[in-house]
Amino acid sequence: MDVATAVGYVHGYSGVETRRLGDQADTLAELLHAGTHFPAGTRVLEVGCGVGAQTVHLVAGSPAADLVSIDLSVESVAVARARVPAPNVRFQVADLHDLPFADAEFDHLFVCFVLEHLADPVAALAAVRRVLRPGGTITVIEGDHGSAFFHPASAYAQATIDCLVELQARAGGDGLLGRQVEPLLTAAGFRDVVVRPRTMYVDRTRPALVEGFTRNTFIAMVEGVRDDALAAGLLTSGEWDRGIADLRRIVDGTFHYTFFKGIAVK
Amino acid sequence: MDVATAVGYVHGYSGVETRRLGDQADTLAELLHAGTHFPAGTRVLEVGCGVGAQTVHLVAGSPAADLVSIDLSVESVAVARARVPAPNVRFQVADLHDLPFADAEFDHLFVCFVLEHLADPVAALAAVRRVLRPGGTITVIEGDHGSAFFHPASAYAQATIDCLVELQARAGGDGLLGRQVEPLLTAAGFRDVVVRPRTMYVDRTRPALVEGFTRNTFIAMVEGVRDDALAAGLLTSGEWDRGIADLRRIVDGTFHYTFFKGIAVK
Repeated sequence: MDVATAVGYVHGYSGVETRRLGDQADTLAELLHAGTHFPAGTRVLEVGCGVGAQTVHLVAGSPAADLVSIDLSVESVAVARARVPAPNVRFQVADLHDLPFADAEFDHLFVCFVLEHLADPVAALAAVRRVLRPGGTITVIEGDHGSAFFHPASAYAQATIDCLVELQARAGGDGLLGRQVEPLLTAAGFRDVVVRPRTMYVDRTRPALVEGFTRNTFIAMVEGVRDDALAAGLLTSGEWDRGIADLRRIVDGTFHYTFFKGIAVK
Repeated sequence: MDVATAVGYVHGYSGVETRRLGDQADTLAELLHAGTHFPAGTRVLEVGCGVGAQTVHLVAGSPAADLVSIDLSVESVAVARARVPAPNVRFQVADLHDLPFADAEFDHLFVCFVLEHLADPVAALAAVRRVLRPGGTITVIEGDHGSAFFHPASAYAQATIDCLVELQARAGGDGLLGRQVEPLLTAAGFRDVVVRPRTMYVDRTRPALVEGFTRNTFIAMVEGVRDDALAAGLLTSGEWDRGIADLRRIVDGTFHYTFFKGIAVK
């Protein structure tokens, strides 16, 4: 399990899913990781590395930093370790709520697509803050499914996205986390909080993003919760199918999604 | 009347409203106008200048261009003329569907917050395209009320925003226009269409934007349709009041809104 499975991981753990998260990271890398460069020799803790999808980009952006990447899932850590053989990264199975590190052991914390899965994100941020040195920084990146809108608009398509949010809520997480990054960092005791949107906009003039983001990341993510959504009775299979059909139509239209990236100081 | 009143102008024409649109333009200027600079001597047509809120910034960004700003409203043109006394701008009352200009008379077209009010935006774009020279460019800027999301989330607050969209639709416009800029430009015959989001994100760490955008632009805009929304029976006064109260609460939370800026070639 990784940190997410503590409350039930809505994205699942199949091999297909592992590849999808990898694709997503590659497409999003520039959007999300621009500006994230940790100096040589600084001690960086990646919290909730999962299968290493973001670790790849962390290493690329900070090739001489001293990186530790943790996850609660033994399986995910094994995948990540095989995937990112960089000499300056050490992978470790650990629980963010009970970190096996001394106070102030790290100069920087990196927390990407983790808080959305947690029942108490403020408690999580406060727990990881312990191992950050005073004056050190934390970087948080989260999506927000409420930022998804598209053309042609469709209430049926929207209903399938709403299923994703509802299932994540029932699992104890929050699919609308991105908009809360500033309040959460502030509530956890960080200062000098700066949050900015990183917006993904896709239309027919950007075919690589139509494939890499709209189709293979976002629509694939929604399609991935079909069985759970139907089992929970959130939609009928007819409603689901119509929603997905409408959602697939946006690859010829436009799609908008916003991530939020926050940086703050201890 | 300006171009918008052809289909009923949801924003209205009061003095307060004129000031609000001015405030909005000043706060948004950098976000919206960055990158818009027309060379000295080039002939630029601003379509639907209204009270000149954007003309101020057009002139600032292109002080040596030869600018013509038109609007269907005699009153708006009078306000704009008094407000923007720049020597390189000529204001004129004109209907975008029947422009008093020769074919290919302009090098650039500028169309900001206009299409959202029109019943047939493709026809409007095709009509203004006539006066653009081959190889000339068009710049289109539009908001999208479906991009508005906020913390704390509230279904009541969302319902007041939905009223804005519904009233605009009933008036023949479209409050969800921004996401359609690329398809519309393409359908009107423009080529090399490039659309990018310009996202406004506001939280407590940006108090000037809390005042200038969240409170005095967005919430003020929603509050402005109260009487029409109640008269149309879209909400009860109790629902409206609760929605506005929840919406005002977001000044202590976070707020997100996306504009879309498109550039294309004839």
